[in-house]
Amino acid sequence: MEYPSKLVENAVNEIARLPGIGKKTALRLVLHLLKERDTTTFALTSALDQLRKEIKYCQQCQNISDDTVCRICSSVRRDRGLLCVVEDTRDVLAIENTAQYQGLYHVLGGVISPLNGVGPDELNIELLVRRLQSPDSEVKEVIFALSATMEGDTTAFYLTKKLKEFDLKISTIARGVPIGGELEYADEITLGRSIVSRTTYSGE
Amino acid sequence: MEYPSKLVENAVNEIARLPGIGKKTALRLVLHLLKERDTTTFALTSALDQLRKEIKYCQQCQNISDDTVCRICSSVRRDRGLLCVVEDTRDVLAIENTAQYQGLYHVLGGVISPLNGVGPDELNIELLVRRLQSPDSEVKEVIFALSATMEGDTTAFYLTKKLKEFDLKISTIARGVPIGGELEYADEITLGRSIVSRTTYSGE
Repeated sequence: MEYPSKLVENAVNEIARLPGIGKKTALRLVLHLLKERDTTTFALTSALDQLRKEIKYCQQCQNISDDTVCRICSSVRRDRGLLCVVEDTRDVLAIENTAQYQGLYHVLGGVISPLNGVGPDELNIELLVRRLQSPDSEVKEVIFALSATMEGDTTAFYLTKKLKEFDLKISTIARGVPIGGELEYADEITLGRSIVSRTTYSGE
Repeated sequence: MEYPSKLVENAVNEIARLPGIGKKTALRLVLHLLKERDTTTFALTSALDQLRKEIKYCQQCQNISDDTVCRICSSVRRDRGLLCVVEDTRDVLAIENTAQYQGLYHVLGGVISPLNGVGPDELNIELLVRRLQSPDSEVKEVIFALSATMEGDTTAFYLTKKLKEFDLKISTIARGVPIGGELEYADEITLGRSIVSRTTYSGE
């Protein structure tokens, strides 16, 4: 498409680099910004610039943080015996939203994915090992909350081997039929796994 | 949702102001930018800043332009007797892509929409009238290429009255069943209009 201006073309190309945004959507966004006051654009760009320049990661859990140690790691209310290993910040937010978990987190920053060029060294695995080696560590159980994909399973397998040296309970979040889900609509693998990993009925 | 950092929260809120982007998508984009090199973010923000600061509009057609007069208005190959009135830049791009139109454009910058607080004075209508009044004007026909909505029709009606004083042919783009469309799937209003506005069969 031939854009009416190099400035528009440049902005469209940069926006279209973002995941899930094509050139048509990018053009719609650019024209929206041009219709709004210029302060709208400047507020957006300065928020992004500031984000990229000043973002910090928690020294302990590697989650995004405003301080050197994040709110969760520095909280006295959290159970320091539990450590939940997740892929990224979104997973921390999702688990926090359930209000069912009171332990700490460790953010890997991704999962092992040779196809995308992500090996163990690209992830925060060495930091996890050092964290568990530290004499301050009170961790008794490590919970893997990774995606139920090949990459997630590979990462869990790799981590299990890495963590063998520690005297720790290692667990993974339950896989099964979602709450409210009907059996006939569950895929075979999930339904199969839910039978293998059945739990004792408590009648609650 | 409680974000792990004020910087992230701020960036998410600014991105979520854009049309069609919610907070979940905004967070996904923010985390994507944090995973990429910082130059990706800075290229995006500087493209947007530059766009908003340096954007110009063509003095003649009010389309976005890098120069004071845009490529279309300054081209010697265009038919200066035809003037196509459109809502915004995207319409110009869409019509240019058809390669079926060789005339000039006039970009209104919107359509009359009292519900959204857009009256005739917010649009480039006065500039259109002055353009036609100018002794340099060679325009013989004005074509309305506006959306087939209530707002588009209102705008066309308003413009028709405004342009009465000029000795001009006024036309509007054809409405009907789309090429390749099957009759049974066309809505009644479109099909009805296509019968009323039938054209002589040329056998081509």
